[in-house]
Amino acid sequence: MGTVGSPVSRRRAGRPPRGVLSRDLITDAALGLIASQGYEGLTMAALAHRLRVAPSALYNHAESKQEVLRWVEDQVMAQVDFSDFAEAPWDEAVRSWAWSYRGVFAAHAPLISVIAVLPVTGAPETLAMYEAVTQGFLRAGWPEDRIIPAIVALESFIFGSAFDVAAPEDIFESGSLGPDYPLFTAAVRVRGSSQADSADAAFTIGLEALIIGLKAQLAT
Amino acid sequence: MGTVGSPVSRRRAGRPPRGVLSRDLITDAALGLIASQGYEGLTMAALAHRLRVAPSALYNHAESKQEVLRWVEDQVMAQVDFSDFAEAPWDEAVRSWAWSYRGVFAAHAPLISVIAVLPVTGAPETLAMYEAVTQGFLRAGWPEDRIIPAIVALESFIFGSAFDVAAPEDIFESGSLGPDYPLFTAAVRVRGSSQADSADAAFTIGLEALIIGLKAQLAT
Repeated sequence: MGTVGSPVSRRRAGRPPRGVLSRDLITDAALGLIASQGYEGLTMAALAHRLRVAPSALYNHAESKQEVLRWVEDQVMAQVDFSDFAEAPWDEAVRSWAWSYRGVFAAHAPLISVIAVLPVTGAPETLAMYEAVTQGFLRAGWPEDRIIPAIVALESFIFGSAFDVAAPEDIFESGSLGPDYPLFTAAVRVRGSSQADSADAAFTIGLEALIIGLKAQLAT
Repeated sequence: MGTVGSPVSRRRAGRPPRGVLSRDLITDAALGLIASQGYEGLTMAALAHRLRVAPSALYNHAESKQEVLRWVEDQVMAQVDFSDFAEAPWDEAVRSWAWSYRGVFAAHAPLISVIAVLPVTGAPETLAMYEAVTQGFLRAGWPEDRIIPAIVALESFIFGSAFDVAAPEDIFESGSLGPDYPLFTAAVRVRGSSQADSADAAFTIGLEALIIGLKAQLAT
């Protein structure tokens, strides 16, 4: 992937930047911007500044912020491990894919709400994942017309769960109102331990329920 | 609730704003800001401007943006219908609550990523919902220590699904790359109809799977 960490030296005016900028370098800089300033920090001007080039040089390589976003989507999705769909049983493949997918997006939380609604057009790594997942569903006997809704249902759960990884420890702390809501307050008290462990427990319960329930639906 | 639509007239300098501003009015204005400019548009300065008061007048009522956010959370959560948890069977109550919850957040998409990680402290409407849901789970025989993870799993699915309602029609359009990913492209083609219908189909499959799977886990 790109050469993160080797800053691009400022070019002399008029010298074309081709050969310096690259898709990987731009994508890495975009991810860096989003990580430090959130998604709203990603503008073509801020990106050019971070890359130490003029905006016009950036536009020579990326035609729009939309194109950069597609590159970002594809680089992030390329980290999701879907390899088990090639040979493992369906439920094992769903399980390992879902855990990997949640981990990748938990590490890129500001991107969840963007990528959840970004078209896959022109994103080959993303499409390769969907192709492998579709193939795994077909091999497990899923009728073609129920595959996309099932994948979307799993992804909805995965995206929502990725948020939960980043939730603060005290998310369910009822505070001084606690005595007015005794059943909830008691249930929160017994769930135990850290937010990371709690998020894992909720993800396990939900994912295993989805796998059981989807298999049951397939059988009918 | 608040008197939306009746603009607050600009106060003369020095005249205290108490009696003009109210929690409901501030909350309505905050929701209006978020709807028009996204979550990043919500600042205390922008909120004061929208309410046509000086920032100091706003701070007389709301001590921080965090407090306003808590009011917003509570007003949005108050729209979720959880009434079936009082008497209906568990699966019916989960079903009607989840559909209502998804609908409310689909209408407030910019808030999903914020409220998904916002503590419930000081939010009585939100706590009232969790209390009723917890009571419904207890009545259905759920062990106390598995209730919060199950609620979080359902909420993760609901939040992720609320994003999907707002996804564009062409989200799975593989475009010119289609022939390279034939199985996925064919599965997308047969899923049919509009994005709204597709989102409903995915939500139905996922929610019914979760209900089946959670019931199966409870039985073991």
